[in-house]
Amino acid sequence: MERAYRLVISCPDQVGIVAAVSDFIASHQGWITEAHHYSDPDSQWFFMRYVVRASSLPFGEQGFRERFNPIAERYAMRWSLTDTGSNKRVVLMASKQAHCLSDLLYRWRSGELKFDIPCVLSNHDELRDYVEWHGIPYHHLPVNKDDKAPHFAAVSQAIADAGADAVVLARYMQILPPDLCQRYPSSIINIHHSFLPSFVGAKPYHQASARGVKLIGATCHYVTSDLDAGPIIEQDVVRVNHHNRVEDMVSLGKDVEKTVLARGLRYHLEDRVMVHGNKTIVFA
Amino acid sequence: MERAYRLVISCPDQVGIVAAVSDFIASHQGWITEAHHYSDPDSQWFFMRYVVRASSLPFGEQGFRERFNPIAERYAMRWSLTDTGSNKRVVLMASKQAHCLSDLLYRWRSGELKFDIPCVLSNHDELRDYVEWHGIPYHHLPVNKDDKAPHFAAVSQAIADAGADAVVLARYMQILPPDLCQRYPSSIINIHHSFLPSFVGAKPYHQASARGVKLIGATCHYVTSDLDAGPIIEQDVVRVNHHNRVEDMVSLGKDVEKTVLARGLRYHLEDRVMVHGNKTIVFA
Amino acid sequence: MERAYRLVISCPDQVGIVAAVSDFIASHQGWITEAHHYSDPDSQWFFMRYVVRASSLPFGEQGFRERFNPIAERYAMRWSLTDTGSNKRVVLMASKQAHCLSDLLYRWRSGELKFDIPCVLSNHDELRDYVEWHGIPYHHLPVNKDDKAPHFAAVSQAIADAGADAVVLARYMQILPPDLCQRYPSSIINIHHSFLPSFVGAKPYHQASARGVKLIGATCHYVTSDLDAGPIIEQDVVRVNHHNRVEDMVSLGKDVEKTVLARGLRYHLEDRVMVHGNKTIVFA
Amino acid sequence: MERAYRLVISCPDQVGIVAAVSDFIASHQGWITEAHHYSDPDSQWFFMRYVVRASSLPFGEQGFRERFNPIAERYAMRWSLTDTGSNKRVVLMASKQAHCLSDLLYRWRSGELKFDIPCVLSNHDELRDYVEWHGIPYHHLPVNKDDKAPHFAAVSQAIADAGADAVVLARYMQILPPDLCQRYPSSIINIHHSFLPSFVGAKPYHQASARGVKLIGATCHYVTSDLDAGPIIEQDVVRVNHHNRVEDMVSLGKDVEKTVLARGLRYHLEDRVMVHGNKTIVFA
Repeated sequence: MERAYRLVISCPDQVGIVAAVSDFIASHQGWITEAHHYSDPDSQWFFMRYVVRASSLPFGEQGFRERFNPIAERYAMRWSLTDTGSNKRVVLMASKQAHCLSDLLYRWRSGELKFDIPCVLSNHDELRDYVEWHGIPYHHLPVNKDDKAPHFAAVSQAIADAGADAVVLARYMQILPPDLCQRYPSSIINIHHSFLPSFVGAKPYHQASARGVKLIGATCHYVTSDLDAGPIIEQDVVRVNHHNRVEDMVSLGKDVEKTVLARGLRYHLEDRVMVHGNKTIVFA
Repeated sequence: MERAYRLVISCPDQVGIVAAVSDFIASHQGWITEAHHYSDPDSQWFFMRYVVRASSLPFGEQGFRERFNPIAERYAMRWSLTDTGSNKRVVLMASKQAHCLSDLLYRWRSGELKFDIPCVLSNHDELRDYVEWHGIPYHHLPVNKDDKAPHFAAVSQAIADAGADAVVLARYMQILPPDLCQRYPSSIINIHHSFLPSFVGAKPYHQASARGVKLIGATCHYVTSDLDAGPIIEQDVVRVNHHNRVEDMVSLGKDVEKTVLARGLRYHLEDRVMVHGNKTIVFA
Repeated sequence: MERAYRLVISCPDQVGIVAAVSDFIASHQGWITEAHHYSDPDSQWFFMRYVVRASSLPFGEQGFRERFNPIAERYAMRWSLTDTGSNKRVVLMASKQAHCLSDLLYRWRSGELKFDIPCVLSNHDELRDYVEWHGIPYHHLPVNKDDKAPHFAAVSQAIADAGADAVVLARYMQILPPDLCQRYPSSIINIHHSFLPSFVGAKPYHQASARGVKLIGATCHYVTSDLDAGPIIEQDVVRVNHHNRVEDMVSLGKDVEKTVLARGLRYHLEDRVMVHGNKTIVFA
Repeated sequence: MERAYRLVISCPDQVGIVAAVSDFIASHQGWITEAHHYSDPDSQWFFMRYVVRASSLPFGEQGFRERFNPIAERYAMRWSLTDTGSNKRVVLMASKQAHCLSDLLYRWRSGELKFDIPCVLSNHDELRDYVEWHGIPYHHLPVNKDDKAPHFAAVSQAIADAGADAVVLARYMQILPPDLCQRYPSSIINIHHSFLPSFVGAKPYHQASARGVKLIGATCHYVTSDLDAGPIIEQDVVRVNHHNRVEDMVSLGKDVEKTVLARGLRYHLEDRVMVHGNKTIVFA
């Protein structure tokens, strides 16, 4: 894949935004390879994502920023520019269950997903060998049930030390404290093992089994201080029937969790997700 | 399809049930064309459904019942025997929206689903022409918002007069009173336009849109006096994205509602659904 | 829904197309409510679809065309402009099976799909009553097995007389002659009852059953003179198992056929489908 | 999970089979925890699978076999009895692509799938480190393009040496010679990266892209000497659109391949798959 810039914009909707942006790109002979727009009719807010070949432009990232800034100001844009040549740094957090972590590590080492993993954090030591085999540092940060503050302080420090752009909770079973959630808005990605908003909280497969649903699911969402209620990035489901006990649901659900988390993370890594209120626009 | 008997049984699990039932059938040269069993490990309760060719047996329905009764008593069975040659009588109830009703009427007139429709009940008069074109009586039973009791009395009377085996709420938008629900246990089938238990109650597509889910669904369930909480028979979902406004969800959802209701009703008509607590075993 | 213009464009890809088009719209204060782009990297061909609020523009359809024409010529565009206020005229063709036809007629009469039906053509007379109940003319055009030419001449004439923009083969079981296919490129829509390219030709459910597949499907595609090989608009599948005989597959498949055809037709009616070689771009 | 016996039977259908088998189990106080039957109406062939708690029976595997044999002979049964306490030995074969192999190894080491892996065979050396990290022997058996016979002789020998019950081709890219296929009927499991029978043979994603399909899939099937035409165990699909190039299809398809292969292998390991002609009965 050729190096490119991803230009992601949101702003109040008005006539002329697309013209202004595409004029700017065209006037510099920029070659647009992907273009997505969305205009939210309720909030009158506008969203766009352009991918422009780096080699088609006569300037680099800094030059792009400087020249684009006046347009951004004219339309009161929130915007970001990303160089596809540099990877996002993503801290992975897990507990004892390895299915999501294993799956992400495979996608990372095979190059299927392009990102850097400065470290893996866990409140248990079980997954150390497997992570270290990949040459990735593993930090075991135990939790004291009666006082979780030291654990979260250590987590917070480790994330900061890692210079992380994003954090993935790959079936990390602790609830992050509000201040940590707020420090990384739209940057902490969780996989919840139910089709939210069904079965918020603990043991969703037990809840699903008790309710007798015919499909179970998983939800990839950004973490906010409101438990399991952050903006949803991706969801999927799988069929179950009366033969499937809770253990079977856990097993069937793992496949959905892995796939949904991987899709959600890919969207995030490629700057395809834009948060608007408590919802997401995903330019998939 | 050749005439057959459907024998449906539930009882406390113990050694020898299958042997006793299959011995009975075999001793009379009965030809089993379908056989399903399920043994619930938590409640230690057993469920089975056999389909036996009528022509292979030396006795009719009455003879079957008499001869089988001692076995049923020995194992404390709840059981039913159905002759596939006689149709269930199903009262359809609707409001103004016709998608589910139209779909069921098509399946009825094409013979895809085999059942009798003694009448259609509605709190509005809009669908009269279409229903009557099919030669089916249409009863318009208006609702007085301030006093719904007369409406439900009329509904109740109409169901009784129709000699109904089952009632289908094909997007009938009123909540049935508890006593009516209790009079027809596991016999009133509703289609709810969400993936329950998400979005119980009114305007589920509005709720879904507000929450920003990536899949919307529909749920076919038996009605109990607990709103939208009865045993689930069938569910399905369809993908939505940020482009889809509430109106689009309503439109996309209709296709899921129709399909899920039709599947659920078919299971019911073919005696494939067994209620166990608040869950169903569906021998699909 | 407010009246709008749909501007659909394809042309060789080059720098500046989006800028030119969006400049044009913006310079006339046009309010873009939907925008889709696609740049095909292999063929270097570019596709776009804009929806612009009619009330935001100072000119009507004719004025739009005249003013836009120079831009279209500069970029060698193939383009169309559609006023959402006027419906496409779609001739429906069916045989004896009514599931797809019934479904489309419901969507038409409920306003779920917005189009005009000048007439229904069929090689059988079975569906006359149902169609005529809707107030739609029904033409029975019988087929002589030994000489089908007169039938197709009559079909051809009826389509021409109807001033049709599109034709839907709603399980019409005859193969259209090549010259008729070629007269209406990307305008004759067929629903094939298999997941193409599996099971081309006659009796696909029998073929599926013989092969023992675990999913069956349906395909909505434009008709070309190459049987079942035209550009695919939409597909979907449903799970089957060893219990499902050919008859069950036929029944399960009908639900997929209806849904897939309705989706494909909606995309076509809303000018969301662009044909490129033997493939489609669907701006869904 | 408690130890149990799986009794799997197929025989010509006739009255009394279920009675005979269930009588036998009941007469020894056997506790049936799962029971599946299927009677194929076309071939008049009967299939059943019982799971019986080992602790409920007064005899072991050998005793079971001896006592059951007369019944098996009376009904001309093909039958097998498996003790869930002993694992099947499954040789995994791969090439360079690791997604399926990695996924299976995860399921193996986490205990999600219960089987033994005597060795991994590959025509390349790339995956050695990863496999050996698991403590599993890795045999690199290179292929000489001009004379593949020595490779297949080595493969054949390695499978025999491993005492394998089954072989999984986890994206092993060579076509096995007919004599090897025939030596292990219904025991060599392949994952084909298309929704068969679409896109048989090489480069199915390229074929899918060229045809412009809207769903791509994967098929898990038993290998026969007829390429990609063996009995299908499991299939699934994922949606694609015009944005997805061949590379994207490869990437999206991998997730389907992994899931479909894992499901198919699980069915095989649990003796849920019965081959009948070129089709499977899967008691899922």
